[in-house]
Amino acid sequence: MKPKIIILGAGYGGLTTSLILQKELHSDEADITLVNKHSYHYITTHLHQSAAGTKSTDRIKIDLGELINPKKISFIKAEVKKVDIKTNQEVYLNNGQILDYDLLIIALGSEIETYGIEGLKENTFSIRSVNTVQLIKEHIDYMFAKYKAKEAKPEYLTFVVGGAGFTGIELLGELTDRIPVLCKKFNINPKSVRVINIEASANALPGFDTQLVDYAVKLLEKKGVVFINNTPIKECTENGVVLANGELIKSKTVIWTGGIRGNKIMETMGIDHHCSRVKVDEFLRIPSFENIFMIGDMSIIMNKNGQPYPPTAQMAVQQGKYTADKIISYIRNGERYQTPFTFLNKGVVASLGKGEGIGKIGHKQVTGYRASFLKQLIDNHYLYSIGGLPVLFKKGSM
Amino acid sequence: MKPKIIILGAGYGGLTTSLILQKELHSDEADITLVNKHSYHYITTHLHQSAAGTKSTDRIKIDLGELINPKKISFIKAEVKKVDIKTNQEVYLNNGQILDYDLLIIALGSEIETYGIEGLKENTFSIRSVNTVQLIKEHIDYMFAKYKAKEAKPEYLTFVVGGAGFTGIELLGELTDRIPVLCKKFNINPKSVRVINIEASANALPGFDTQLVDYAVKLLEKKGVVFINNTPIKECTENGVVLANGELIKSKTVIWTGGIRGNKIMETMGIDHHCSRVKVDEFLRIPSFENIFMIGDMSIIMNKNGQPYPPTAQMAVQQGKYTADKIISYIRNGERYQTPFTFLNKGVVASLGKGEGIGKIGHKQVTGYRASFLKQLIDNHYLYSIGGLPVLFKKGSM
Repeated sequence: MKPKIIILGAGYGGLTTSLILQKELHSDEADITLVNKHSYHYITTHLHQSAAGTKSTDRIKIDLGELINPKKISFIKAEVKKVDIKTNQEVYLNNGQILDYDLLIIALGSEIETYGIEGLKENTFSIRSVNTVQLIKEHIDYMFAKYKAKEAKPEYLTFVVGGAGFTGIELLGELTDRIPVLCKKFNINPKSVRVINIEASANALPGFDTQLVDYAVKLLEKKGVVFINNTPIKECTENGVVLANGELIKSKTVIWTGGIRGNKIMETMGIDHHCSRVKVDEFLRIPSFENIFMIGDMSIIMNKNGQPYPPTAQMAVQQGKYTADKIISYIRNGERYQTPFTFLNKGVVASLGKGEGIGKIGHKQVTGYRASFLKQLIDNHYLYSIGGLPVLFKKGSM
Repeated sequence: MKPKIIILGAGYGGLTTSLILQKELHSDEADITLVNKHSYHYITTHLHQSAAGTKSTDRIKIDLGELINPKKISFIKAEVKKVDIKTNQEVYLNNGQILDYDLLIIALGSEIETYGIEGLKENTFSIRSVNTVQLIKEHIDYMFAKYKAKEAKPEYLTFVVGGAGFTGIELLGELTDRIPVLCKKFNINPKSVRVINIEASANALPGFDTQLVDYAVKLLEKKGVVFINNTPIKECTENGVVLANGELIKSKTVIWTGGIRGNKIMETMGIDHHCSRVKVDEFLRIPSFENIFMIGDMSIIMNKNGQPYPPTAQMAVQQGKYTADKIISYIRNGERYQTPFTFLNKGVVASLGKGEGIGKIGHKQVTGYRASFLKQLIDNHYLYSIGGLPVLFKKGSM
């Protein structure tokens, strides 16, 4: 009997596991099914570029048909509605299909965390998927057109980014690259445009080296960003954001990057979770479920200091590899998982727009063009690793 | 004493007059000033393409700096607020300048005619200027993004064109070219999109040969347009259009092409007019004002049957040439205008999208690719006539 392996989600984690299994296993060794909402994988780490309009969504979408070999993996385009791991061990899809499994890999990613801020969900945009970032891009363009053709209201050209974490900072880098282009296109004085970042913590990029944070903030300020730190958002309305001090910043474009939580599918599973994320065991399994892996943004992994690692693409890819290796070893040798998962931090690089960035590789800090170049290398390496030269040539940045 | 010549407006009429005077007159023969709201001339006959998104606005804008020689003509970028032709013979600009003139050419074009339809002005878009068509383009793109990322409401993808005259029909041709591109970009089934034309008259393109109208309507129907004739619009709301029969067509995008009237500057002049247009004398002058020409969309010219000619680019260009010739002749010979203006109909061609069109040249009907080709020839000829090869190469279509 071939084991049935079901992989839920084709993000960084699920896709990595799928591609390794596809390459390593013979078709008579396992019966593999990959379920994903879209027929494409997307480069989440570049979503902010499509939101700002500096990179077309075509460049960040990779058709799963180009990556998945149907002789090795059955692909189902569907949404997961419910995962029953306790009673029937079944996965329910929105197309009516019900799948059973011997091994299950749950890698359904994250959703936006609103921290209960009133009106946030209804009145802000978010960097979440190809569709949501395309909406942001078109919305921004539309605001420029409206300002020019209808009424020159300042709120049309006031762009608020909520949150100064990784995504927020990278988005500001791209936005400030894009705005001069739009000003030229619509013949608008760049001085009419305001870009404001609002962050509840005392500093941008909490946890990052102070020197690097300073570099990023100064650079973005030079590019026109106004930073408001130490200031939670109290409420979002269709007119803008109300700060904790009661001040209203009028804006028709508020983009929320303030936090993520796990996929809400967790609520259907009947197990303990922290904001829809699960602290997995040392083998990346849901505690007391030996045949269910949970990887990517839905999993919580602790570092040596007892702090959770931030959910990143790098983490998801390493988890995806680990999971695939362990599954292969289990199928071939019946080996129980002996070696726990360890995360190897290969470094972090944040882009700050064209030719600019900050990064830390080991103990080494990099800034400017070198950081930007490094970021490109990392991105291209990932593209090459999933799709070889064809995908690298089509989607890579040179 | 050099005569002071003031030209108001750099559309087809005013620009043609300006360029001929610039070429023919020595700088010591006249003191010429051109006033225009924008620093560019635009190809009004292509506005519908930019509205649909099939041609960028860069391609339809021509910088006046490339056409006007400052040694010959003083250019003022300003809006005309008031023209006092009775008391002081002065032109008032929105920058505070007041200009006096010996010869005045008024060529300030047209505005949208709403026929008193309730809510029309507030809730519809119009093909009027570079800015308004850019707004339409961005709005349409935004509707696709919203449909995809927010809610799949049919009104987001229902596009209503009010009026089946020349502009309406040409817009439908471009829109139906653009929609498949947008469906592909946003991964939307083209069957979700509706394009509806609403016309109060019994037929599209009133006055055009029946065979040609049939050709156009059948072609556009094949491209997905639904025509509703014989049906005035009663009201426009933010939810769509209410027809005379009470039916509501839900749509977030209603583009009104149903009619034009003259520039409202007319109301400041204290003379008789019909919807801000004036029936000029046989020499294109405002009756009983020997030194004031009125050309382009603001002027009414009657044909042999006592019907007004439709206001077109072709008419404005011919009027512009006539006016320039008469001014030159007057300055050089003191000649009073002996030869009345006559309009020479060189033919009419309407585009129906890429590679398709209808036209009538003399008694000859043309359709399909030949009409489309002819349209390109006419457009390129105009570009060449105003700006020579440099402008033709930059803005022409090949």
